[in-house]
Amino acid sequence: MSDAPHKTILVLHGPNLNTLGQREPAIYGHTTLDQINAQLRAEADGMGVELVILQSNYEGALIDQIQQSAAVACGIIINPGAFTHYSVALRDALAAAQLPAIEVHLSNVYKREPFRHHSVVAPVVTGQIAGLGPDGYLLALRYLARHAAAGN
Amino acid sequence: MSDAPHKTILVLHGPNLNTLGQREPAIYGHTTLDQINAQLRAEADGMGVELVILQSNYEGALIDQIQQSAAVACGIIINPGAFTHYSVALRDALAAAQLPAIEVHLSNVYKREPFRHHSVVAPVVTGQIAGLGPDGYLLALRYLARHAAAGN
Amino acid sequence: MSDAPHKTILVLHGPNLNTLGQREPAIYGHTTLDQINAQLRAEADGMGVELVILQSNYEGALIDQIQQSAAVACGIIINPGAFTHYSVALRDALAAAQLPAIEVHLSNVYKREPFRHHSVVAPVVTGQIAGLGPDGYLLALRYLARHAAAGN
Amino acid sequence: MSDAPHKTILVLHGPNLNTLGQREPAIYGHTTLDQINAQLRAEADGMGVELVILQSNYEGALIDQIQQSAAVACGIIINPGAFTHYSVALRDALAAAQLPAIEVHLSNVYKREPFRHHSVVAPVVTGQIAGLGPDGYLLALRYLARHAAAGN
Amino acid sequence: MSDAPHKTILVLHGPNLNTLGQREPAIYGHTTLDQINAQLRAEADGMGVELVILQSNYEGALIDQIQQSAAVACGIIINPGAFTHYSVALRDALAAAQLPAIEVHLSNVYKREPFRHHSVVAPVVTGQIAGLGPDGYLLALRYLARHAAAGN
Amino acid sequence: MSDAPHKTILVLHGPNLNTLGQREPAIYGHTTLDQINAQLRAEADGMGVELVILQSNYEGALIDQIQQSAAVACGIIINPGAFTHYSVALRDALAAAQLPAIEVHLSNVYKREPFRHHSVVAPVVTGQIAGLGPDGYLLALRYLARHAAAGN
Amino acid sequence: MSDAPHKTILVLHGPNLNTLGQREPAIYGHTTLDQINAQLRAEADGMGVELVILQSNYEGALIDQIQQSAAVACGIIINPGAFTHYSVALRDALAAAQLPAIEVHLSNVYKREPFRHHSVVAPVVTGQIAGLGPDGYLLALRYLARHAAAGN
Amino acid sequence: MSDAPHKTILVLHGPNLNTLGQREPAIYGHTTLDQINAQLRAEADGMGVELVILQSNYEGALIDQIQQSAAVACGIIINPGAFTHYSVALRDALAAAQLPAIEVHLSNVYKREPFRHHSVVAPVVTGQIAGLGPDGYLLALRYLARHAAAGN
Amino acid sequence: MSDAPHKTILVLHGPNLNTLGQREPAIYGHTTLDQINAQLRAEADGMGVELVILQSNYEGALIDQIQQSAAVACGIIINPGAFTHYSVALRDALAAAQLPAIEVHLSNVYKREPFRHHSVVAPVVTGQIAGLGPDGYLLALRYLARHAAAGN
Amino acid sequence: MSDAPHKTILVLHGPNLNTLGQREPAIYGHTTLDQINAQLRAEADGMGVELVILQSNYEGALIDQIQQSAAVACGIIINPGAFTHYSVALRDALAAAQLPAIEVHLSNVYKREPFRHHSVVAPVVTGQIAGLGPDGYLLALRYLARHAAAGN
Amino acid sequence: MSDAPHKTILVLHGPNLNTLGQREPAIYGHTTLDQINAQLRAEADGMGVELVILQSNYEGALIDQIQQSAAVACGIIINPGAFTHYSVALRDALAAAQLPAIEVHLSNVYKREPFRHHSVVAPVVTGQIAGLGPDGYLLALRYLARHAAAGN
Amino acid sequence: MSDAPHKTILVLHGPNLNTLGQREPAIYGHTTLDQINAQLRAEADGMGVELVILQSNYEGALIDQIQQSAAVACGIIINPGAFTHYSVALRDALAAAQLPAIEVHLSNVYKREPFRHHSVVAPVVTGQIAGLGPDGYLLALRYLARHAAAGN
Repeated sequence: MSDAPHKTILVLHGPNLNTLGQREPAIYGHTTLDQINAQLRAEADGMGVELVILQSNYEGALIDQIQQSAAVACGIIINPGAFTHYSVALRDALAAAQLPAIEVHLSNVYKREPFRHHSVVAPVVTGQIAGLGPDGYLLALRYLARHAAAGN
Repeated sequence: MSDAPHKTILVLHGPNLNTLGQREPAIYGHTTLDQINAQLRAEADGMGVELVILQSNYEGALIDQIQQSAAVACGIIINPGAFTHYSVALRDALAAAQLPAIEVHLSNVYKREPFRHHSVVAPVVTGQIAGLGPDGYLLALRYLARHAAAGN
Repeated sequence: MSDAPHKTILVLHGPNLNTLGQREPAIYGHTTLDQINAQLRAEADGMGVELVILQSNYEGALIDQIQQSAAVACGIIINPGAFTHYSVALRDALAAAQLPAIEVHLSNVYKREPFRHHSVVAPVVTGQIAGLGPDGYLLALRYLARHAAAGN
Repeated sequence: MSDAPHKTILVLHGPNLNTLGQREPAIYGHTTLDQINAQLRAEADGMGVELVILQSNYEGALIDQIQQSAAVACGIIINPGAFTHYSVALRDALAAAQLPAIEVHLSNVYKREPFRHHSVVAPVVTGQIAGLGPDGYLLALRYLARHAAAGN
Repeated sequence: MSDAPHKTILVLHGPNLNTLGQREPAIYGHTTLDQINAQLRAEADGMGVELVILQSNYEGALIDQIQQSAAVACGIIINPGAFTHYSVALRDALAAAQLPAIEVHLSNVYKREPFRHHSVVAPVVTGQIAGLGPDGYLLALRYLARHAAAGN
Repeated sequence: MSDAPHKTILVLHGPNLNTLGQREPAIYGHTTLDQINAQLRAEADGMGVELVILQSNYEGALIDQIQQSAAVACGIIINPGAFTHYSVALRDALAAAQLPAIEVHLSNVYKREPFRHHSVVAPVVTGQIAGLGPDGYLLALRYLARHAAAGN
Repeated sequence: MSDAPHKTILVLHGPNLNTLGQREPAIYGHTTLDQINAQLRAEADGMGVELVILQSNYEGALIDQIQQSAAVACGIIINPGAFTHYSVALRDALAAAQLPAIEVHLSNVYKREPFRHHSVVAPVVTGQIAGLGPDGYLLALRYLARHAAAGN
Repeated sequence: MSDAPHKTILVLHGPNLNTLGQREPAIYGHTTLDQINAQLRAEADGMGVELVILQSNYEGALIDQIQQSAAVACGIIINPGAFTHYSVALRDALAAAQLPAIEVHLSNVYKREPFRHHSVVAPVVTGQIAGLGPDGYLLALRYLARHAAAGN
Repeated sequence: MSDAPHKTILVLHGPNLNTLGQREPAIYGHTTLDQINAQLRAEADGMGVELVILQSNYEGALIDQIQQSAAVACGIIINPGAFTHYSVALRDALAAAQLPAIEVHLSNVYKREPFRHHSVVAPVVTGQIAGLGPDGYLLALRYLARHAAAGN
Repeated sequence: MSDAPHKTILVLHGPNLNTLGQREPAIYGHTTLDQINAQLRAEADGMGVELVILQSNYEGALIDQIQQSAAVACGIIINPGAFTHYSVALRDALAAAQLPAIEVHLSNVYKREPFRHHSVVAPVVTGQIAGLGPDGYLLALRYLARHAAAGN
Repeated sequence: MSDAPHKTILVLHGPNLNTLGQREPAIYGHTTLDQINAQLRAEADGMGVELVILQSNYEGALIDQIQQSAAVACGIIINPGAFTHYSVALRDALAAAQLPAIEVHLSNVYKREPFRHHSVVAPVVTGQIAGLGPDGYLLALRYLARHAAAGN
Repeated sequence: MSDAPHKTILVLHGPNLNTLGQREPAIYGHTTLDQINAQLRAEADGMGVELVILQSNYEGALIDQIQQSAAVACGIIINPGAFTHYSVALRDALAAAQLPAIEVHLSNVYKREPFRHHSVVAPVVTGQIAGLGPDGYLLALRYLARHAAAGN
């Protein structure tokens, strides 16, 4: 566990989120993932919060990161992308981490295909923010910064 | 349509939310509805936003209010309470209002009974915030204040 | 029971139908509820039929009206709006009234969301007319005027 | 496409409707199909509408007729009988015809076996009239005569 | 909380129960609601129990009453009528009241339509009595009078 | 039982039964349809029963035949083949005929694909015989000869 | 009510109810089956009612008893225990007995596992009492003593 | 067909079939089980077939009998009664016996409650005869006498 | 069976495919069925393959043709159109023919209504080609010409 | 409770397991139940464990045995056979016994019919061993001998 | 068709396809993946098409490759193997690539386990070819070579 | 294939099992994965069995390992963790390996969330051991050591 004065928050982006802004902007908007991450870092800096950010198309990489950050982070912001709907392994990793965690979705998943209405991750996180675009990440950060104790 | 310089946002609380803070605090917390409303008004004042707030145990009263506010408000924050799960009439009223709207739930509904996982309202609102307690209302207000145009 | 020489027919409009013509005209058309009611009254006058008309966003108000009219009316035209899909209480009121009743829908509900394909009211009414717009009410009136005995 | 001054409307009766009036009058009434057709022709004559009428126990024959009439008719009245519940081929023929079409059922199908509650045809027609007995056909004719343009 | 020497029990009758005795006696019997209430009051008098009785066709009115009585009553007898099957709001009000409560149905709901076999209220009450006609209310009263502590 | 000259029994074979004996003998056996029909005629002759036999791959042809035979036959033996599982039109024709009818299947359909376990015809016939090979027809004939009155 | 010599009521306890009071008292309470039976006998004595009581872990034994008592008893109180959920044979025996019968459950089965929410017996009995503990038996006895005619 | 000393056929009647003829004759007819057994014995005598007949309300008794008869019988006629719908143990006993077996139902189970449409036994027997009343047993006997080899 | 040196392949087009090119080109394209057939014949000529081509709106006609061609053809290309989803009779005919067969769909059925995702024919054919427009037929022809032995 | 120095373990074999080794060896193997029991006794002897072994085709007999052994045994090995899939009564008996219990299946039930994939017993036992043949019993014995305390 | 320098087509093989030819040849045939790739390269060479080929057991690796090739390829041939049935992430990557894509399966998946009948990928590709063995790849290549424009 | 004198057994641990002992000990116990592996190695040494052990959070890594070990191992012990419920790719790899394999779960998955009751892997392994904690691995090893032939 870290004894640093600041808090560390883990930010995870699931599969295909690295193509944000370039493709299907009608659904996902024009903001790129780099822009979202920059906004998050700017906001975090102002709060004295350090961010660990990872995007991966590999379920295993996201789980590895959660396991590594579990001891030092005080909260998790995760947009599991398509893993939302089937990655029980990701769910188990989040449950095992026992950290405040917020599931973020850029689009309102309830306006899309029925299979996107079900999240296997939802029952093990603190809460969800969906449909608010990149703002969803910022609101999640604001919540965690206020509610998560430093050093977990 | 209002030509007032400020924005009006409608805040709706569904059935049984008037008993917040007094009962089942393990699920819903100790904050009362009056306290939440006071926090919202304080925050709104600082943003130059006017709030119209209604709690009702009557589905019809909530629909009446949405219809009356549709022309003057620029956004809706709604915690439909139990109506979330069956009030198609409320859904239709929200859809007809054609305003940015955010569905807020105090608890993480996905940790509760299966019938609470389904929202008939979700597909017609802009987004959802769930599980973040009273903060959910404040985050919703912040989002709407930024994204909803004044005078609708 | 009325001993008046003419027949009385109850016309009920469920939730959100008071906004007809103003909103979502792509689905519901441009005719307002007042215009539909005026057409119905004109048609009824020519038939020596008296209409009792009620629109309400309150399930309870519609049920109260059915109970009050049950003894004097000889038929019911009802567009239950969103209540179609879940108001078993409305269904029970219609069944208890034991009057010829026609369920009217402006749009073809089978072209819309799956949950709109199921009517809890359908098994207790005489018949249904759907998808024919405001004409549906007029055709229902014509049918009831011919088939419902005066004074019930 | 016909340039005749009058309109042509196609009237289709599905399987077993040729036995109307003789069997199971408790469900289907005592009127025979010939009597219904005669009523329809009398009504159509007064409206300057020509009817093409076909009853068949063969799905293929009904489809052939729809294809042949598609170019000359301005509307379709169809009681698909038992085909209502499974004939996707009939549905596709109706959809391809791109004509105003009304699905008519003599009985209130929602009072009968559950499998009769589902119509594969309903999503591709203009509307439905059910439970109003032979009057259903006449009301459908009245609607189409008013709304369908001559010569399609 | 009341410091009165006697106990107060809340008796709630849901939608359409005000028409008891007049309609569909084959299912619901010939006893009117006034007669049932009179029987209950007579029985309660003998037990030193005070009854607060409400029938309403409005879900909101029943919820309001539960909220108002929660602090003074020591038990609830409720026949939710059609609300049994969908009013999650009523369920939540009963759960919040945290009082011994008995769900009463006049008819054996398991002999009727399948949708009547499911009660959304059942999991939050103490127990159910169904199919025993007006006696069901009296047996429920006897149980509550014995088991519910005065002044809640 | 009538002692009229003789009884007529209708024997219907559904689609693909004309290929019996030639194909898939592991399921359907080696007996051809002609052999089965010959066995039936021999047995019927000894009973003073006349058989009307039809095999068709057309649903409409089977329905036509049922309608034509309804007035003169005193019973129906039908192996609906694949129509068993979806031909509601055939079901309706059998129900309208109001004759004793026995549904025969050569194979034990419950040992085969799940969709073959459901018969839409079963609820409107007198009984079923399945899995007894060509004997099923003979046993059905024996039953009908004993129980069906001559001349219907 | 008859004052004939006496009425006989059959009381049946299904599998595992003989272990009442000793095991899982959190669900089933501390009262033993002997205590319940003693309470029932005391109550019955005061009413001039004779009880035949049987507990068995064998479905067949319960059915045998119902068949033997059918001619002499005027009512049945049955707690089918686990058989509630699958013993169609018990259901058929109860239906064949054609006696007033009340299904009793000690616990509120709707608060327990989903499979306990479904009773195959419910549709063939007069009514149900659930969740009221041992009192359920006494209330059932009171109801049957009043409503069941002596000597069946 | 073998002319060996004689064949033995096992006839099994499931729960409640011992009350045949006395109760619910509208469904099951007026013939008693003794009469059916007598008819079967008479028929079997003429065929040189010996019958072993057992009725039991105990699933275990029926299984015991199947195991004991497996080595000496050449066929089984079984009306499993209510066990049809859930006794996988009976199914397994029949499958293990590896004898020609016919499942007989007096009534047409497909005209009754949906749960009676499913037989867990059907996939392991040779065939089914349903809806033909007591004749079903006789037809089954005729089939087995012809097709089952003596001494198994 | 033919002793001709060339192969015969049966090409079947189901209901409504005769209207290809004229209607709903957004889904089915602008190519007519005649054009597709001409392309197929041109391609077949170059391969020394003879084609038997049939389009029909009658299920029975398609089955008749399969039965007639079974002995002389060495492969089947079938676009069952709407029959894909319910014609078990067509499935059985294809299974009985025991020929290499390819199911072709012009559109990608998985982008359309859910009921179009299920094919009752798929389990009995060799393979499927869907979504490739008229090319699907040509690719199927190429496959069968290579893999199907002449003279079946 | 026994104060004997050794441990007692109850071994239960459900319906049809007495025919092991003789029938369907492809699924269940050639070992007889006597041989399995002998192996178990030999193994138990070496561990100073006493076995109480019962096979029965009667659900009630197995439940009786569990109830009788509950106070003296320190563990249960049970192969419920077909009861696995529906005997809630057996489940309740095991739950009431509150002993370490292991559910054993000889075959891998997940390779068999879908209804064999569901065990109503599984949620109340300690664990399951399936598909390992007679070894499953021995492994279960080894586990219980190590983990179950003597004298329960 | 473009005569631009050359087209690039991406060929993706999902998990376990690297073991083709060695294992389970009854289902997947004897051709190895190297042989299929060689055939594809030979065919592509003749068409002036360049292939990028990847087999991986990692979902993430396939997604990475799709993202990298999206800008340079003009089409995708993908056999997702087991990922077909659950990899929503792969589906999203394909949808984001916005390239003509063909889903290929060696075996006819509709003849196999029910879970193999559902493809999460199917709704976002151009079309499917299944059951035609290695030829499926070649037919897909031929289609893409003709229809996909060079340089995407 | 190896010609080594000893047997090799592959031991696979799925995602999150590397955190055993540290997190959620109420469900998974306090033993770490290293301790389990050490116990397994000690036991294997005594049996002359060599173990290849891999834990990974990557589905692809587990599949790669199975493919590499398929030729040299004589058995597989696999705890697929969360992959149990959706990794069809893992299932296919296990099926292709054609080795004796045992699926081990530390906890009794049938006492946990419903989605954990279904294993996609179960139908392709030899057997399952669940709920017996770390002992499950040891029992699996004992079974495989006895039943798996050396050198596969």
